[in-house]
Amino acid sequence: MKYVIGVDSGGTHIVGQALTDTGKVLFETQSGPGNILLDEPGTYRNLTTILTTIFENMPQADCQHVLIGIAGVETTGNATEVANYFTKKFEVKVDVISDAQLALLNGLEGEDGTLVIAGTGSVVYGRQNKKMMRYGGWGFLLGDTGSAYKITAEAMINALKAHDLNQANSLIEPLINWLNATNIKQAVQKYYQLNRKDVASLAAKIAELAEEGDQTAQRILIEQATALAGEVLGLIKQYQAPIPERIAFSGSVLVHNDFYRETLLQQINHVYPEIKGHVVSTNNGRGAIFWEEWQ
Amino acid sequence: MKYVIGVDSGGTHIVGQALTDTGKVLFETQSGPGNILLDEPGTYRNLTTILTTIFENMPQADCQHVLIGIAGVETTGNATEVANYFTKKFEVKVDVISDAQLALLNGLEGEDGTLVIAGTGSVVYGRQNKKMMRYGGWGFLLGDTGSAYKITAEAMINALKAHDLNQANSLIEPLINWLNATNIKQAVQKYYQLNRKDVASLAAKIAELAEEGDQTAQRILIEQATALAGEVLGLIKQYQAPIPERIAFSGSVLVHNDFYRETLLQQINHVYPEIKGHVVSTNNGRGAIFWEEWQ
Repeated sequence: MKYVIGVDSGGTHIVGQALTDTGKVLFETQSGPGNILLDEPGTYRNLTTILTTIFENMPQADCQHVLIGIAGVETTGNATEVANYFTKKFEVKVDVISDAQLALLNGLEGEDGTLVIAGTGSVVYGRQNKKMMRYGGWGFLLGDTGSAYKITAEAMINALKAHDLNQANSLIEPLINWLNATNIKQAVQKYYQLNRKDVASLAAKIAELAEEGDQTAQRILIEQATALAGEVLGLIKQYQAPIPERIAFSGSVLVHNDFYRETLLQQINHVYPEIKGHVVSTNNGRGAIFWEEWQ
Repeated sequence: MKYVIGVDSGGTHIVGQALTDTGKVLFETQSGPGNILLDEPGTYRNLTTILTTIFENMPQADCQHVLIGIAGVETTGNATEVANYFTKKFEVKVDVISDAQLALLNGLEGEDGTLVIAGTGSVVYGRQNKKMMRYGGWGFLLGDTGSAYKITAEAMINALKAHDLNQANSLIEPLINWLNATNIKQAVQKYYQLNRKDVASLAAKIAELAEEGDQTAQRILIEQATALAGEVLGLIKQYQAPIPERIAFSGSVLVHNDFYRETLLQQINHVYPEIKGHVVSTNNGRGAIFWEEWQ
């Protein structure tokens, strides 16, 4: 059976998939990190492991194309070089793009449109007439609007403000408990010891509280979804008419939190009623099956 | 000449001063860090150095009182123990309070009132009827409203938003230059490599731009001063009537930036016209001369 290979090479790990032309995953393998800006030899090594493993399990002659999306490759600027290296090494046509472009290709299924990612961090991408755009995504200190990290941070800030004002707040006790603290001051100390992923993981618990009817938690989700909608609208403003109607939602916050996603879409539809949302929960390696549509 | 000793024992260094009853500094010495929560033996050691040095230079018999304000002592809870240790060791009456209380004592000159500190970070303290209050001060991830750190961060966020919207922004070029970068993306990378103090140090440059008439810089300063005023008003709300009319301003942002400080005071006076501002630029060791007024 003919197949293509899609490889998502990111900062924490690499996922390689062999896929049919309808996106069915025939084989999948993972390896260590693959940010080429942070570790070029390591990325070459790990990508070699990925492709070698796939070709040990799938007939190499049936592979029609390999598409690799690599974190950091926009900055290093050596996509062509990497593609040539693997094309020669494995005797199969390899193309290399950035991991963001691969996410866009997968999220939009080869069409023009907008991709909103809100997981630990957040970023908004757009594509129109073969041109890629980006809004936000400046990291936890300068951006990450509407991300899981920001949801937790805003919950903490909200609880601390209530504490400072001697006001009741339904988030104070849960946050103290989640952070294994005995009081709010200790909760702050514990918060500063967490890494970004651990901070972000608390957002799911805040979403649970919101689902159970906690109005403070709901308000924080609405505020963050609204702020993220502002960034999406900022990107859409830069499209030429007619604007692409497709918007794809990716990342844990948008995939798992229906209330949050619907709030975000409502804010966008308020300005652009014709825009339609799609949830992306597949690995971005699947972007490989849409490669032809972008050529 | 009779004198008192005031010692400000903080996270980066300790300053010890011998002072006349009008606050004239007769002798001053510095030593290494003195946060007792982070390093108890080191703090004992460095405080011993401070007092030994002073008594090598000033007649010990003329010393009437020693007041030490120590960072972290609220959490460790051993102020009395530390005071007893040094009272016995140097045969002079020693009292120990927190560095925040010492700042309050110095800033308010022994009266009731509010102390706003905005340097690298920010915090608002209040004192009324022997009771101390606090608002904010939850650090750079959860607080530091109106601080130098926040002014720089907001300038970056503002510039990045304009960049994302393809809009002109007068802060983009200066920020790129100050961060020794060649473009905005690299400026963000450099920003993430800075420590908090280095980030905060850029606030003075933003203040210079504001003074030269840059409206974006002015707006950022106004926004941060307004946000900090919100915290001050949050603290004042908790006073009992009649509210203390004194407000003291401390920290580099409030001491050096007249425009910022006046904006802050205007916002407060808008609600409480009777409140009067004072700038505190003395070392907090001077708080020692007001100790009797708090007893």
